[in-house]
Amino acid sequence: MSTPTEPVKTQPRYARWLATTNVVTRHIVATYGPDCINLSGGLPAPEIYPLAAIEAATQRALARFKHRAVSYGPVEGMKELRMAIAARASTPRQRFGAENVLITTGSLQALDLLGKILVEPGETILAQFPTYLGALDAWRPRTPTYRRLDWAADPMSLGQAVSGAQFVYCVPNFSNPTGALIATESRQRLLAAAQRAGGVLVEDDPYGALFYDGVALPSLLDLSSDGSEIYRGPVVHLGTLSKSIGPGLRIGWAIAEPKMIEMLSLAKQGADIGTGTFAQGVAVELLDAGIDRAVLPDMLALYTRRRDALVAAAGEHLGLRFDFTAPVGGMFLWLTAKDPALDTDALWPIAFAAGVSFCPGSVFDPTARLKNAMRLNFTLNDEAQLVEGVRRLARAVERHLQAPA
Amino acid sequence: MSTPTEPVKTQPRYARWLATTNVVTRHIVATYGPDCINLSGGLPAPEIYPLAAIEAATQRALARFKHRAVSYGPVEGMKELRMAIAARASTPRQRFGAENVLITTGSLQALDLLGKILVEPGETILAQFPTYLGALDAWRPRTPTYRRLDWAADPMSLGQAVSGAQFVYCVPNFSNPTGALIATESRQRLLAAAQRAGGVLVEDDPYGALFYDGVALPSLLDLSSDGSEIYRGPVVHLGTLSKSIGPGLRIGWAIAEPKMIEMLSLAKQGADIGTGTFAQGVAVELLDAGIDRAVLPDMLALYTRRRDALVAAAGEHLGLRFDFTAPVGGMFLWLTAKDPALDTDALWPIAFAAGVSFCPGSVFDPTARLKNAMRLNFTLNDEAQLVEGVRRLARAVERHLQAPA
Repeated sequence: MSTPTEPVKTQPRYARWLATTNVVTRHIVATYGPDCINLSGGLPAPEIYPLAAIEAATQRALARFKHRAVSYGPVEGMKELRMAIAARASTPRQRFGAENVLITTGSLQALDLLGKILVEPGETILAQFPTYLGALDAWRPRTPTYRRLDWAADPMSLGQAVSGAQFVYCVPNFSNPTGALIATESRQRLLAAAQRAGGVLVEDDPYGALFYDGVALPSLLDLSSDGSEIYRGPVVHLGTLSKSIGPGLRIGWAIAEPKMIEMLSLAKQGADIGTGTFAQGVAVELLDAGIDRAVLPDMLALYTRRRDALVAAAGEHLGLRFDFTAPVGGMFLWLTAKDPALDTDALWPIAFAAGVSFCPGSVFDPTARLKNAMRLNFTLNDEAQLVEGVRRLARAVERHLQAPA
Repeated sequence: MSTPTEPVKTQPRYARWLATTNVVTRHIVATYGPDCINLSGGLPAPEIYPLAAIEAATQRALARFKHRAVSYGPVEGMKELRMAIAARASTPRQRFGAENVLITTGSLQALDLLGKILVEPGETILAQFPTYLGALDAWRPRTPTYRRLDWAADPMSLGQAVSGAQFVYCVPNFSNPTGALIATESRQRLLAAAQRAGGVLVEDDPYGALFYDGVALPSLLDLSSDGSEIYRGPVVHLGTLSKSIGPGLRIGWAIAEPKMIEMLSLAKQGADIGTGTFAQGVAVELLDAGIDRAVLPDMLALYTRRRDALVAAAGEHLGLRFDFTAPVGGMFLWLTAKDPALDTDALWPIAFAAGVSFCPGSVFDPTARLKNAMRLNFTLNDEAQLVEGVRRLARAVERHLQAPA
C-alpha cells in the first residue's frame, strides 16, 4: 500500500453557526468524578432507573417483534409505539391516533426537525426567555432570529408577535430553566392568539408528570382539542421517556396534526431514517406494562424531598446573594443574583474548581447576555450532596465577588 | 376546561427544501405484505440477525454499565464503544484512539452532521453520481449545489474540483446505487488531489465487509494514514453496525482527525444530545464478543448465493431490456435501460401494482433526471423470491413499454 507524500494540510472551512455554540452541554451530560457535584444537568436520579423492568422488556420485545426489533422500521416509528403514545395522549374530548404521532430520537430531535421544516435561515422563532439551551443548540444550524414571548402581552400584541414568527416555542410546565409554571389563563390566551393568527405552538413537555404540589394544569394540546375526528392543531406537543424511564433509550415523540407529522417525517428520513427499532420495541413493552406510571409515585416522593433540600440549602447559604422561588415541579431551581457585579459566567470555573457545577444563565439566552442568573438541578443528587454542593457554590460566590474585576 | 371558539386555521409555511424530498425511502423501509417483493431497500436478510446474541449482550450490558446503560452519555459516544471502533480501524501503520471516533445514530446521521458543519446554504458538494439517496436527503435542508466527481479526471481538474467544494462524498466499496468498486489507483489519485487542495474526503463505507469475489481494497482512510501519532485527515470514514448486526440498533460512527470529531460533536449535541447509551452498551458487548465478525462467513455465503440468483434471473428475464454488470460485493445490482423510452419513474407504480418494488434511478440524482436506470437489492429476499420478483418486474417492463406515452 503506497501513500502520497504531500503533507496533509486539511483546513476545512466550518459553517459560521459553529462560532455560537454552547460549551456546557458536554459538561452537563458528562459523568463527573466523585470530586465534583453535578448540579448542572437535567438528569434523573440514577437509582430510580427501572433496570430490571428494562431487561425484562427487552426479552419480551425480542420474543414479540423478532427480527423487526433490529430491522429498519417505518420512518414515523413503530405502529405499536405510536398507538401507545396516542392512547396516553387521548382524552374523553379528543382521540389521537398513530397518524398524530412521530417517534423521535429523544425529544431534542423533534426540535431539530421542527427547525429544519419551519425555519429558513434568518427567520423568526418566538420563544420564552430564558429558554432551554438544547432548543437553541438544535436551531443554531438554521440561524434563526429570536423574539421574546411575553405571556402578559395584550391580545393584539400577542397576535402580532405570533404572526411574525414561524412558530412559538414554550415549556409551560416548569419551564427550563426557570421552573416557572404557566397559568391556565395564560395558556388559553396564547392558544387563542395562535388560532387567530394561524400560528404553530410548540409545547415542549418533558416535565409535565413531575408535579410536586397542587394538580396538573391542562396542556396546550388539551386546550386546543376541539373533539374533531382528527386533531387539527395548532399545537405540536413534545414528550419523552427520558424523565420517566431513562434518557439512554432516546425515545421522544411529537403529537400534532397529520400534515405536520408527515412533514416532520420527511425531515426525519434525512436525519436518522427512523429511531432505533430496538429501543422502540423495548419502549412498547415498558408502556404496555405501565412501567412509566409505576415508577412515578417513588420518583415524585424522592424528587420532592430533594427539591425541599435544595431550596432549604439555597435559602441558608445563597439567600443573601440570590433571589429565587421554590418550584412546584420539574427539575430545576432558578436563582437571580441581587448584586449586579455577580457574573455567573465568571463564577462557573471557580465553582467547578471548588467541586460543583451549575448552568450559567447565559447559555439560555441566544445573545448570551444573561449573566446574573443560574440554574441548579435537584433530581440527580441525594440530599447530602445537594447541601454540600450548595455550600461549595456559596464559597465560590464569595471568592468570585472578592476577586479583582 | 374551556377552549377558544375560533376555528383552527393552522397553515404553517414549510421550508422550501421540502418540495425536493424523495418519496421512496418510506417505501424502502416499510414492511411489505406477502403480496409485494421488496427489491428496493438496502436491507439485510432478517434471518441472519443475531437475536440470541443481542439478547445476551443486553443482559451483559445492563449488568456491566448499570444505570449508565440508560443515562445520558457523552455526546461523542461511550468511551468503551469509541475505543472498540478505534481498535477495529487501527492498523500496524496507524493507531486510532477514542479521540478519532464519534458514535452516530446510524451512519446517516453522520451525513446530516457533516452537512450542518461544512455546508452553508448553496455551497458545493462534490459527489459520485448517481449517489446514495439518503445522503441527498440528509443534505436537503442545507440546500447544497452538487458537482459530479469524475474519478478519471486529470490531476489538475480533479484538484480544481476538490478545491471548489466543501467536501467530497464517495462510496468506494460497491457504490450505492451502482455497486461499483473503485480501483485502488483511483482512490490514490483522489486522495492525492484532496491532500494538495486541503479538501475533506467523506468515505461512506457501509458495505466494505460484503466482498464476495476477490480481496478487499485499501480504504481511503488506510491510504491516508501516515503513521503520525494522531491521525491528521483528510478522510472522514463512516461505518455502521447496520449491515453486520442490524440497522435497528442505529449505531454508526465517523472516524476522522480530532478537530473534525469535535465539530461534528457540537452538531450532534443539537441533533440528539448523544446516541442512545442503551444501544451503545449492547454494541460494546457485541463487539467485545466479536459477533459482527462471527456472523460474516454465513452472511457472505448467503449473499453470494442471492447475488448469483438475482444476476442469473436478470440475465434471463431483463437482459433484452437492460445492461448491467454483476457486482463483486455490496447489496445492489444496477441496471441501465437499452431503450431510451424506458422510464423507471413511470415503471415504478406499474411494478408496485404487479407486486414488486425497486429503486428508480431518479432518486439517486439531485436533479431527478436519471430516468433510464434502476437499483435492485439482492440481500433481503431468498432466491425463489428474487426470481419471482424479477419475473414480475419483467412483465411490468413490457406493460410499461406497450403503454401509450
